[in-house]
Amino acid sequence: MTPDEFRRSGHELIDWIADYIDGVGDRPVQATVEPGDVRAALPEHPPTEPESFEAVMADVDRVIMPGVTNWQHPNWFAYFPANNSAPSILGELLSAGLGVQGMSWVTSPACTELETLMLDWMQELLGLPDRFRSTSETGGGVIQGSASEATLVAILSARFRATGGAVNLDGDTSKLVAYATSQSHSSIEKGLRIAGIGTDRLRVVPHDAAFAMRADALAEMIAADRAAGLVPFFVNSNHGTTSSTAFDPTAAIGPICRDAGTWLHVDGAMAGIAALAPEFRWVNDGLDFADSYCTNPHKWMGVNFDCTTYWTSDRSSLLGALSILPEFLRSAAAETGAVIDYRDWQVPLGRRFRALKLWFTIRCEGTASFRHMICEHVSMTQQLAEWVADDDRFEIVAPHPLNLICIALTAGDAATDALIEAANAGDAGHFTRTVLDGRSVLRISVGARTTTPEHIRAMWAALRTLA
Amino acid sequence: MTPDEFRRSGHELIDWIADYIDGVGDRPVQATVEPGDVRAALPEHPPTEPESFEAVMADVDRVIMPGVTNWQHPNWFAYFPANNSAPSILGELLSAGLGVQGMSWVTSPACTELETLMLDWMQELLGLPDRFRSTSETGGGVIQGSASEATLVAILSARFRATGGAVNLDGDTSKLVAYATSQSHSSIEKGLRIAGIGTDRLRVVPHDAAFAMRADALAEMIAADRAAGLVPFFVNSNHGTTSSTAFDPTAAIGPICRDAGTWLHVDGAMAGIAALAPEFRWVNDGLDFADSYCTNPHKWMGVNFDCTTYWTSDRSSLLGALSILPEFLRSAAAETGAVIDYRDWQVPLGRRFRALKLWFTIRCEGTASFRHMICEHVSMTQQLAEWVADDDRFEIVAPHPLNLICIALTAGDAATDALIEAANAGDAGHFTRTVLDGRSVLRISVGARTTTPEHIRAMWAALRTLA
Repeated sequence: MTPDEFRRSGHELIDWIADYIDGVGDRPVQATVEPGDVRAALPEHPPTEPESFEAVMADVDRVIMPGVTNWQHPNWFAYFPANNSAPSILGELLSAGLGVQGMSWVTSPACTELETLMLDWMQELLGLPDRFRSTSETGGGVIQGSASEATLVAILSARFRATGGAVNLDGDTSKLVAYATSQSHSSIEKGLRIAGIGTDRLRVVPHDAAFAMRADALAEMIAADRAAGLVPFFVNSNHGTTSSTAFDPTAAIGPICRDAGTWLHVDGAMAGIAALAPEFRWVNDGLDFADSYCTNPHKWMGVNFDCTTYWTSDRSSLLGALSILPEFLRSAAAETGAVIDYRDWQVPLGRRFRALKLWFTIRCEGTASFRHMICEHVSMTQQLAEWVADDDRFEIVAPHPLNLICIALTAGDAATDALIEAANAGDAGHFTRTVLDGRSVLRISVGARTTTPEHIRAMWAALRTLA
Repeated sequence: MTPDEFRRSGHELIDWIADYIDGVGDRPVQATVEPGDVRAALPEHPPTEPESFEAVMADVDRVIMPGVTNWQHPNWFAYFPANNSAPSILGELLSAGLGVQGMSWVTSPACTELETLMLDWMQELLGLPDRFRSTSETGGGVIQGSASEATLVAILSARFRATGGAVNLDGDTSKLVAYATSQSHSSIEKGLRIAGIGTDRLRVVPHDAAFAMRADALAEMIAADRAAGLVPFFVNSNHGTTSSTAFDPTAAIGPICRDAGTWLHVDGAMAGIAALAPEFRWVNDGLDFADSYCTNPHKWMGVNFDCTTYWTSDRSSLLGALSILPEFLRSAAAETGAVIDYRDWQVPLGRRFRALKLWFTIRCEGTASFRHMICEHVSMTQQLAEWVADDDRFEIVAPHPLNLICIALTAGDAATDALIEAANAGDAGHFTRTVLDGRSVLRISVGARTTTPEHIRAMWAALRTLA
């Protein structure tokens, strides 16, 4: 592709994307293909000679788009929002165009320093504790690729601290025990497996009727494990579970962890972003006790995936866990925070210039726009909750403090499952199913940037008809 | 940012990137800033109201660019190439514009199916064993974010197989032992730490004068560990080390691993891409024995970071290690390969539509262009080797089969270190230092798409003057 072809094709693609975003509501929400359809429509073998960009884009329209599930659709009520603001798309484009590697400060200082500044901006915008700032004594923040990686990094930091670093050499995790509710994200268990700790040493802490951790049960379990000679090393507290936006009581969990010397990780992957609106700053309650915290600008906030913001108040355990340099080569500058080598803050070595898309989004959208969007989505969800409460065929099965509501039919699981299937087969929108304490539940997640009150009204009318 | 602003700003940014690529050779290779300069030039606090895209781009020019180390520069001889072809930039842009999540087949079937096809295309283009194809009985491929993640996934798969899956529950790795040379990438040791195995159980296998593993020594070490009741579970064989492009003898290592039941991972992160040129297909020698393999299209091939291609011939160990569903929920369709949920092939849950940039690059560049570029870079490197050999102040300190040459001054380490420092301070290019068997070495990595024989000639003249 010549430079001129790049310019021409790039302009065409920008327009194509603008048209896509404008018209996404006219497409079906879900992909319309069967397994194997996409591959079958493409050549089995690669071309030797170059093809034109137009030919490729024709295949995008013909083959790829019918196979795409449109996450930006206004009737997107499934999983979680994955908004991609226009400035974040341009930030990703600039990152790709520069093609720099931010593994160390020296490999592109701006990549590191802008990221540090963005994490401090986000700390300020979210109202997080000052001990997470890069300018604090012992803390700092970093962009991770996903909340799963943030969780793994937290587990590894906790593992390092609990073993005094010995685990790096001997791999001995045999005394370590972790705690979380059954409502926690699967990445907790997956992270514990990856870290060589294993499912047997994940204690499932009972939850209450609101699906929140029972702090008294946690205290008892930790005491029992300590009495048995084990080392309670990691507690995960949810600030908004995936299934139902349940909030564990971090303010009560925190002192228990502090007294036991246990690392407290707070997972606010989805709901933590609500703190961008001062009205919902309560989602941070208890964070003063946390050793680490993550939330995802790549969900509700509108920074295109991947952009997880992760903070720790214990930078030295993080560096101990992930820096691969021998002790005598560790950089004093990096440990004190004068210069950061982010390769030592994450699992991979290489890293893209992801801070650009966060910077572009915050500057070109302005922080007031986030607050407005969040308040709108919560308001739509609460309106929907009123309508659901007024229809006695339906039941709301969990608290719905923000932008997710979990409902079921009073007629039972079979009816609820049938409703979910029918809703996804029609044009009411795209929904996911979950199970709460054994019961089938229809999740309605409200958070696409394109969703308006009219979409919520139409969706609810469609669900009522199907019920 | 309104849709119209997105169109206008997007066009501007495309042109900005085209200008950047055209003119990158006129910029300094390395960033010209001191620690803290970039941050100090930006506001400490985020803006409440939106700013114009022009204002942001003005700061890109004023603040970010002086802090960028230009990896696309024709005088880029440091680390490794990180080429970003024009079509790959557009592929990344489309991925950001669509904003779909490919964690499961159902969350965007095209994201999964195009990726599977691209891995099969790459298997064909590189001439890899058929047992890595998605259409094989037990194998398949996936895009990982980095070779470090691919290494970790290989270690986790090996750990699962060696323990019959028990490690997922009990976390017991106490018998496991891994093997690699001192020349292996740091991600091997980092991966073993993450996986709860630890540095003490990484056996450093001696290498020969060419920095290649001594297979006889490996066989002895494995036998000794087995006799001691340990479980040799993982061997890393390098196809091109980072320091010097050393090739471990996989064809000899393979039978040793097979007989011992040990997982054989082959790390071809940088050099494996050379197989795109039939002249260098020998880089695959021995791959028939491998349980897993990775190489990075995001280095030499020109697909912008991140795009690591990873294959395994043992899909079920990979799924066993990384699928978090309980046994009774595991999908038979996914295990047989009819439908793939790539979330179970990697550490993170979320994933971008990275196959687009590989597809765009292969189609718009054509495979013949890769062969041409690789042959040119190798030819330039071999010409340089002749010049170095003709200057008796210099010495070539390792074999240089491809596009990297390691040289030193015969006057000793102090002189070589002084040369590296002087070269990086001037305009000869950007170089990295390594240590080979205790000796200081200047690495010259030839692989930027923009580098021509004239750049090599000028660089060598500059080095001779400095020497």
